[in-house]
Amino acid sequence: MTYGYWGRIIEVDIDTRTYKKIPIKDGDYRKYLGGSGLAGKLLYSDFDYKVDPLSGENPLIFMAGILTGTPVPTSAKSSVVTKSPLTGIWGEATVGGFWGPQLKKAGYDGIIVKGKSEKPVALYINDEKIEFIDAEGLWGKDVYETEEKLRQKTDKNAEVACIGPAGENLVKIAGIMIGGRDTRAAGRCGVGAVMGSKNLKGIVVKGTNKVPVYDKERLTELIKKFMPELKKNTQGLYDFGTAGGVQAVEANGDLPIKNWTLGSWEKGAAKTCGQKIAETVQTGHYACYACPIRCGKDVEVRVGPYKGSVGHGPEYETCAAFGSNILNEDLDYLCAANDLCNRYGLDTISTGNAVAMAIECYEKGLITREDTGGIELTWGNGEAVLELIQKIAYKKDIGKVFAEGVKKAAEEIGGLAHEYAVHTKGLSYAFHDPRAFTSMAANYATANRGACHLEALSYFAEGGAFPPELIGFNKQTDPHGYQHKGELAARMQNFMNLFNALGLCKFLIRGKASPEIIKNWVNAVTGWNLTSEEFLLIGERLHNLKRMYNVRLGISRKDDTLPPRLLTHDRKTGKAGGSLPHIGRILSDYYEFRGWNPEGIPTKEKLEELGLEELIK
Amino acid sequence: MTYGYWGRIIEVDIDTRTYKKIPIKDGDYRKYLGGSGLAGKLLYSDFDYKVDPLSGENPLIFMAGILTGTPVPTSAKSSVVTKSPLTGIWGEATVGGFWGPQLKKAGYDGIIVKGKSEKPVALYINDEKIEFIDAEGLWGKDVYETEEKLRQKTDKNAEVACIGPAGENLVKIAGIMIGGRDTRAAGRCGVGAVMGSKNLKGIVVKGTNKVPVYDKERLTELIKKFMPELKKNTQGLYDFGTAGGVQAVEANGDLPIKNWTLGSWEKGAAKTCGQKIAETVQTGHYACYACPIRCGKDVEVRVGPYKGSVGHGPEYETCAAFGSNILNEDLDYLCAANDLCNRYGLDTISTGNAVAMAIECYEKGLITREDTGGIELTWGNGEAVLELIQKIAYKKDIGKVFAEGVKKAAEEIGGLAHEYAVHTKGLSYAFHDPRAFTSMAANYATANRGACHLEALSYFAEGGAFPPELIGFNKQTDPHGYQHKGELAARMQNFMNLFNALGLCKFLIRGKASPEIIKNWVNAVTGWNLTSEEFLLIGERLHNLKRMYNVRLGISRKDDTLPPRLLTHDRKTGKAGGSLPHIGRILSDYYEFRGWNPEGIPTKEKLEELGLEELIK
Repeated sequence: MTYGYWGRIIEVDIDTRTYKKIPIKDGDYRKYLGGSGLAGKLLYSDFDYKVDPLSGENPLIFMAGILTGTPVPTSAKSSVVTKSPLTGIWGEATVGGFWGPQLKKAGYDGIIVKGKSEKPVALYINDEKIEFIDAEGLWGKDVYETEEKLRQKTDKNAEVACIGPAGENLVKIAGIMIGGRDTRAAGRCGVGAVMGSKNLKGIVVKGTNKVPVYDKERLTELIKKFMPELKKNTQGLYDFGTAGGVQAVEANGDLPIKNWTLGSWEKGAAKTCGQKIAETVQTGHYACYACPIRCGKDVEVRVGPYKGSVGHGPEYETCAAFGSNILNEDLDYLCAANDLCNRYGLDTISTGNAVAMAIECYEKGLITREDTGGIELTWGNGEAVLELIQKIAYKKDIGKVFAEGVKKAAEEIGGLAHEYAVHTKGLSYAFHDPRAFTSMAANYATANRGACHLEALSYFAEGGAFPPELIGFNKQTDPHGYQHKGELAARMQNFMNLFNALGLCKFLIRGKASPEIIKNWVNAVTGWNLTSEEFLLIGERLHNLKRMYNVRLGISRKDDTLPPRLLTHDRKTGKAGGSLPHIGRILSDYYEFRGWNPEGIPTKEKLEELGLEELIK
Repeated sequence: MTYGYWGRIIEVDIDTRTYKKIPIKDGDYRKYLGGSGLAGKLLYSDFDYKVDPLSGENPLIFMAGILTGTPVPTSAKSSVVTKSPLTGIWGEATVGGFWGPQLKKAGYDGIIVKGKSEKPVALYINDEKIEFIDAEGLWGKDVYETEEKLRQKTDKNAEVACIGPAGENLVKIAGIMIGGRDTRAAGRCGVGAVMGSKNLKGIVVKGTNKVPVYDKERLTELIKKFMPELKKNTQGLYDFGTAGGVQAVEANGDLPIKNWTLGSWEKGAAKTCGQKIAETVQTGHYACYACPIRCGKDVEVRVGPYKGSVGHGPEYETCAAFGSNILNEDLDYLCAANDLCNRYGLDTISTGNAVAMAIECYEKGLITREDTGGIELTWGNGEAVLELIQKIAYKKDIGKVFAEGVKKAAEEIGGLAHEYAVHTKGLSYAFHDPRAFTSMAANYATANRGACHLEALSYFAEGGAFPPELIGFNKQTDPHGYQHKGELAARMQNFMNLFNALGLCKFLIRGKASPEIIKNWVNAVTGWNLTSEEFLLIGERLHNLKRMYNVRLGISRKDDTLPPRLLTHDRKTGKAGGSLPHIGRILSDYYEFRGWNPEGIPTKEKLEELGLEELIK
């Protein structure tokens, strides 16, 4: 018996409908942990990096973390790793809910899906029993109905990860959805399209084991000690969810407004925030597995044109995506847009950016009413946005173009459309503006999956929500300056890489969860004796491993940049008016701190230091 | 009779060997002046911008300036304008010598060459007589021999513009050479390849008229008044030529070293500068038409392996190209490299950048000895460089790849080669580093023909050689800072645009030639009554006209950038160690000062203000 992890994963050959339970070496867990760490190691070593992401040769790897399913607070997370069909590089998406813990309870750390089924199929994992379920009747169904039907076919308490029509239609911004109407999403990088390409509609998991913990007593004690700080600092997340931050974010100039062109939107923010949700459509709170924070909100629109939208409430990112960034202040519509994305299985961040870009293209005459299929695609037009979301999910009219993501849409539309596409390496920006906290410029430019906010989450450090001295960063920074920003982003990336590998939620850092605190949990769960230094080194190892995956695909400094809009467009108003990130200095600092060469490639010495010598070609 | 210009150009249809003498409206001269201004207007209005640059549909326009061939000091210049086969956008090259003044004396302001000859041909313009000369026997000959033979066939005092083997072979970095062994080059943008694509080996001109001047007395008086200041400030250029600046440039951190990666090279600079040329290989001085500065130098290598290199000495740019940037300190070899480029008809700036990139690719294993055809392509290896120059001219081995310029070479070689390609919009950088004077970052990013130093020449203003208050710029700047750099570059671009349109050398500004001084000359020559404001407005008009040519071809802010190496590579040593241009702020300032929208497109209002309303689509 191992502790915290099972030491085995399921390898499924979906075209032959066969599977193997394969062991993972103990050393690999300690070296890469689980989640996207271990999955990354497998993707790097066991699969051809040159594969077409939508071919059967591209594996879709689900991996729970080392701590997933244990009593550690927020240990709900698991990762989905694959070569991204959206970006053509490292693809990673993370999701909470109850699916990962359930997989762990079934006795597995992960699932690798290979091949391509001839017909729609679903997978059912129930402890030792593994079944392939015919899913022809489910093809075309939305996420809510799919979850319901799959539970009916298996176990009413089973957990379901599935795709909606967007994934089926190989929409490159489709996610994999968990929890049905209580939707949690492995949203980014087009992982839903990879699942769709395999004709795999869902994976149902049910387990009856207990995830083993090495030293329960010690763990209980550690958690007990940590909990008050977490509770104290996350009361706002409980009260108003992530959307509770809309106004504060706006006040920092951190909110994207009108496809990232404007600097303030105070009144709009007040109408589209968590506080307003709590006053109006909110019906309750939702917590992922083992989460004391409970940031999720249930909502129901009871009146008006969007009556009937019932489910998980819009998160901060979704409020920004379909609110500020397209200039709409109607909360009911926001719930409807969120509901639609969840049903179709679309990533709200990528979809919101695509919609904002489409509106700007329409405004500037680059696409016409003929292209939109008759939609009057104007700023703030909620009805038009809802129609466009549907068109993207079903690749209808101009939706077909934006279903490829903003980068390819710009190539297809041409001309100035490139100026309106806000992405790095093909992944749309998460809705935290690097002009507000410029360490995020280093993060977005270098994040392995593209313009992901979570790889560093360094605005937490810059904004005061997390004291960076806990990860060894003791320098003063100016939110709009450039000094030490590369270092801060790199340190945060190293730390944040651990969360996905452990299966933890990054909101833990709101409770000042330090590497010291977390590695103590890891040691209590696994029986290891990691030091904080070793622990952070694993984070650095994982970041470099993913970088090397991308380097093999041709990624280097030339790709580490921000879109022109975020580099040169001074929004003038708001708290970040006048701020533009000094990308050259920031990256120079970043590479130097990382021990990479000036072209952004990890040096031989660095890889050796990280125990990644096998990656040196 | 008109003054200063003739009001007519020759339009040649090279495939049918016919020509027309066509009139230019007087209003067009006053609106666009001559040179690349008028040529730009013609290229924009009369030709399809979508043409393949090497097809017969692409015109090759030679145009003398309004002042070319008059007594105005340095009035030697003419422009070659075409759609560039190197960059696919606005192509412009400027050249001194005596060819332009001779064309004016023959009674023409310019020549438009259209079509494609079946067989090699040359053109002979002798006052009213225009002949097509069979050039089959000249095909394959180098520039020196071609010039000699064409003079023999026509008039021993005629002036010849011709291509060498590089242009014939459609090498995209081939120039058009003037003056034979006293080589002056219309070097940039691949204009030589366009001439080669037309099977046009040379254009010989001989004229016997006097270029008309409206008020000779006034002009003489104005020139007399200006001359002392010019002489006083250009003594160094007479003594040591442009290469006399190598050491000062190095001291400013402005010299490219080892493909733009190092910050200082003091000893090397002392061995490869004009002062050293004067002590060793120099045999005399050379002046273009009407030039009191006489910055040209004649050289002869009398001993050693490069004995026999006789001709025009290496300019500053050539010393940097084949000296510091590839780490070679041997002046004799530099003369030989220069000689070879002049014979083959290659642009030394683009060729030097290509060679440095090739060496770096070889060092990093991206190209092998097999690719180079056996050359050991190492830093400082002069013999290898000379061989590579030949291979580029003849498209042999890896020379074929670099004959396409560094951008396409990077695409062909792939991977990290992109990091070693130092270009903007496909044109290699001239050898003044934007990390030394950051206004040059604005210039390089936005210059219409790509990474051209001459479009703004703002390092003259930043380095103290020209007082920018003469063009209305009264702000303090820090060489490595970002404030007001966009404005300074834009103001200088507006002013510098006038020089190519007038046919003047930009070294005039070393004599503090202000818009006021120059417009007085223009008025004296033409009889116009331009004010300084009107005059500068023409410069702004021309810059915007060229920008609009590019905008039609899809150019916008996304293309206005520097290569990663110049943005993020801190060279650490030298005076500009630690300096990296803040491109976002610099461009933001630039667009705002220009009255362009944030995406880098001239607004309708700006085009109307400039009298370019016909360009608004």
